Amino acid sequence: MADRSTPGGQAAARDPRTVWQRLGRLTRRAAVAVGAAWLAAACTGLPEASVRGTGDLGVVIERASGRVQIVETTGMTRLGAIDGLGDLSHASVVFARDGRHAYVFGRDGGLTRLDLLAQRITHRVKQAGNSIGGAVLQDGKVVAAQNYAPGGIKLFDAGTLELLADIPAIGRDGRRSKVVGLADLPGQRLAASLFESGEIWIIDATNPRQPAVSRLPAGREPYDGLVTPDGRWYLAGLFGEDGLSLVDLWQTPPAARRVLAGYGRGQAPLPVYKMPHLRGWAMAQGQAWLPAIGRHELLVADPARDWQEQARVAVAGQPVFAMARPDGRQVWVNFAFPRNDTVQVVDTATRQVVRTMTPCRGVLHMEFTPKGEALWLSCRDDNRVEVYDTATLRRIATLPAEQPSGIFFTARAQRFGM
Amino acid sequence: MADRSTPGGQAAARDPRTVWQRLGRLTRRAAVAVGAAWLAAACTGLPEASVRGTGDLGVVIERASGRVQIVETTGMTRLGAIDGLGDLSHASVVFARDGRHAYVFGRDGGLTRLDLLAQRITHRVKQAGNSIGGAVLQDGKVVAAQNYAPGGIKLFDAGTLELLADIPAIGRDGRRSKVVGLADLPGQRLAASLFESGEIWIIDATNPRQPAVSRLPAGREPYDGLVTPDGRWYLAGLFGEDGLSLVDLWQTPPAARRVLAGYGRGQAPLPVYKMPHLRGWAMAQGQAWLPAIGRHELLVADPARDWQEQARVAVAGQPVFAMARPDGRQVWVNFAFPRNDTVQVVDTATRQVVRTMTPCRGVLHMEFTPKGEALWLSCRDDNRVEVYDTATLRRIATLPAEQPSGIFFTARAQRFGM
Repeated sequence: MADRSTPGGQAAARDPRTVWQRLGRLTRRAAVAVGAAWLAAACTGLPEASVRGTGDLGVVIERASGRVQIVETTGMTRLGAIDGLGDLSHASVVFARDGRHAYVFGRDGGLTRLDLLAQRITHRVKQAGNSIGGAVLQDGKVVAAQNYAPGGIKLFDAGTLELLADIPAIGRDGRRSKVVGLADLPGQRLAASLFESGEIWIIDATNPRQPAVSRLPAGREPYDGLVTPDGRWYLAGLFGEDGLSLVDLWQTPPAARRVLAGYGRGQAPLPVYKMPHLRGWAMAQGQAWLPAIGRHELLVADPARDWQEQARVAVAGQPVFAMARPDGRQVWVNFAFPRNDTVQVVDTATRQVVRTMTPCRGVLHMEFTPKGEALWLSCRDDNRVEVYDTATLRRIATLPAEQPSGIFFTARAQRFGM
Repeated sequence: MADRSTPGGQAAARDPRTVWQRLGRLTRRAAVAVGAAWLAAACTGLPEASVRGTGDLGVVIERASGRVQIVETTGMTRLGAIDGLGDLSHASVVFARDGRHAYVFGRDGGLTRLDLLAQRITHRVKQAGNSIGGAVLQDGKVVAAQNYAPGGIKLFDAGTLELLADIPAIGRDGRRSKVVGLADLPGQRLAASLFESGEIWIIDATNPRQPAVSRLPAGREPYDGLVTPDGRWYLAGLFGEDGLSLVDLWQTPPAARRVLAGYGRGQAPLPVYKMPHLRGWAMAQGQAWLPAIGRHELLVADPARDWQEQARVAVAGQPVFAMARPDGRQVWVNFAFPRNDTVQVVDTATRQVVRTMTPCRGVLHMEFTPKGEALWLSCRDDNRVEVYDTATLRRIATLPAEQPSGIFFTARAQRFGM
């Protein structure tokens, strides 16, 4: 309105032609201003930055804040954050097949579906009292949660989180077990382990409202499980006895048998500060690299030779995660307290530790970029995430984060058991 | 301007207050109109559907129309098309690491960068006279093209298609060779084969403006090459002699040696209607499934046993592509004329053909969804794409397409040699 007091303003307003010229100009200017404002929140309320690919996205759990950061691995930046996710200690994340949506499993039983592009929660359910993770089934239409309490597996519609099936984990002993080691398999199936009853279940969810369960005796107290990247072998670690329980999922009908005697809690010669995560086991050149329980060693086992032990590699402490770079040439290892400030890199060709680094305090998790040119690791006690070039082993980026734990990239959507 | 002739228009215009009130109203109306128009093409000109994940996107080459379709594999639908891509016979596609952008290599030497979300061309260069494909380097910042004429490799900035390096393929014979079998490797490297001079080149593009080339003698007339999914083994098929040329990329310095004697053009007992595509070789349970040249067979070779032949499986015709489902349990095979109406499915556990189908005329290419629950195949002569459920082996969708050839999904961005 400042124009009204400018010299000639009133006179000009009295000339209709001038008024309409001004009107036209101002309308255009206003339209630009209003349009720009709309643009900022345009396209169904989403910011312009919502139009982007999802192949290089990921999330970082900020465990103490009930929040996840959304990050991208091309420029190695933080894009935003979503909070209100409840208890995220030991939280894990799986991704929808479109790469846009993530499912966060909180320790408090909360299951939250995130829209990574809009940076918001789309659905959230409190589905159990204590949950330990989940999986997306092969066709992407079903999300499964594995629960400690009440022990069981629940299947949800991946788009709406509508409950499709509730499978209580009642084992041979007639009691309800905690469920661990849930993994999606080829053929719309899941595998999971029942801690108290010592069983491995293979669940066919082709009809997710009426899943069919095969129950296999597996050994004492399976505490975690994994499936190999090809979806053929399911392995459960046993807390109550030596060795591992192995299921060949190509066998009909499948059966569990013991492998790698000498591995496991039963004969651990050292106090175990933290049970290793089986999900962190690595496959490299067809061989499995396993964190030995309670020992300062990695074990190398060969699936093609009945999973026999091929070698042991001495490392700096009790390994927690042993993760293979996607090409299998390196395995990166982090450790339990008191060596949780240390990361080691093993060359799988020579089976030698080629680098020992102490990046920060409280290294909780590691994640490779899809083609493995970089590794991200979380430094819980130093409130940051660090990124390493895996060729030079040099740090190339640092991102602030509040007590970060798990780091998960969308490429997991395209792999079994991830 | 219609308002200028309405009753009272001139009088009202002479009252400055009224003018400013009208101006305000009209500005708002105009802004709404302009804003709405902007919205329709909002977010920097992108439709609302541009906000979506890219993990389930793909492109289908419509070879005769110089056009690609953009498809999505969740709902199995066509999202749009982009034309103006020139000669797309034998065209191939690679993807940016964000999953949003695709690079199309046309036979006419055209290299086009597509935005799959905006459904438009962002950059296009005519970079050679005859080109056969390309690769995106590990870190996603560089795109490489392999050219027949003039024979060589060119490196481009992945964002702008600015030329970074031109590497003429001048071999030991001092002449310019056609380049085939380009594949990206771990460590910002590429491998490629030179047809006339019989060499395999390993190119370190850590500095893409000054790439370093290692030249290995490879055998007579390598006609195509591939790298195994782990990035360790590079294999070139030889047109001029028996066997394959193998490079162990973990060896220092790398060297090429002959494997699989008896394989190759030299002793082919049958006329070869179409050379098989090495890119179609399949790895399943650590073993390589190869289309035998000129024979109605697949060969199974074991990298862990010096690539020795382990078995042969009889199939319906001369195989062109032998592609493993991501879990390795099935290999799907298509064939050269006159059996190019046929597809066979082999169970890799029993090494038996479990299904022979004749889906349509001119089956040119096949592509699995990232987790392998479905397979898409192109029916060139029936102008459609068909989608199969790989568990039931039933057709679950059909999409119209004009003479479709290659089908490429964005998950390729996260794999070596794809």
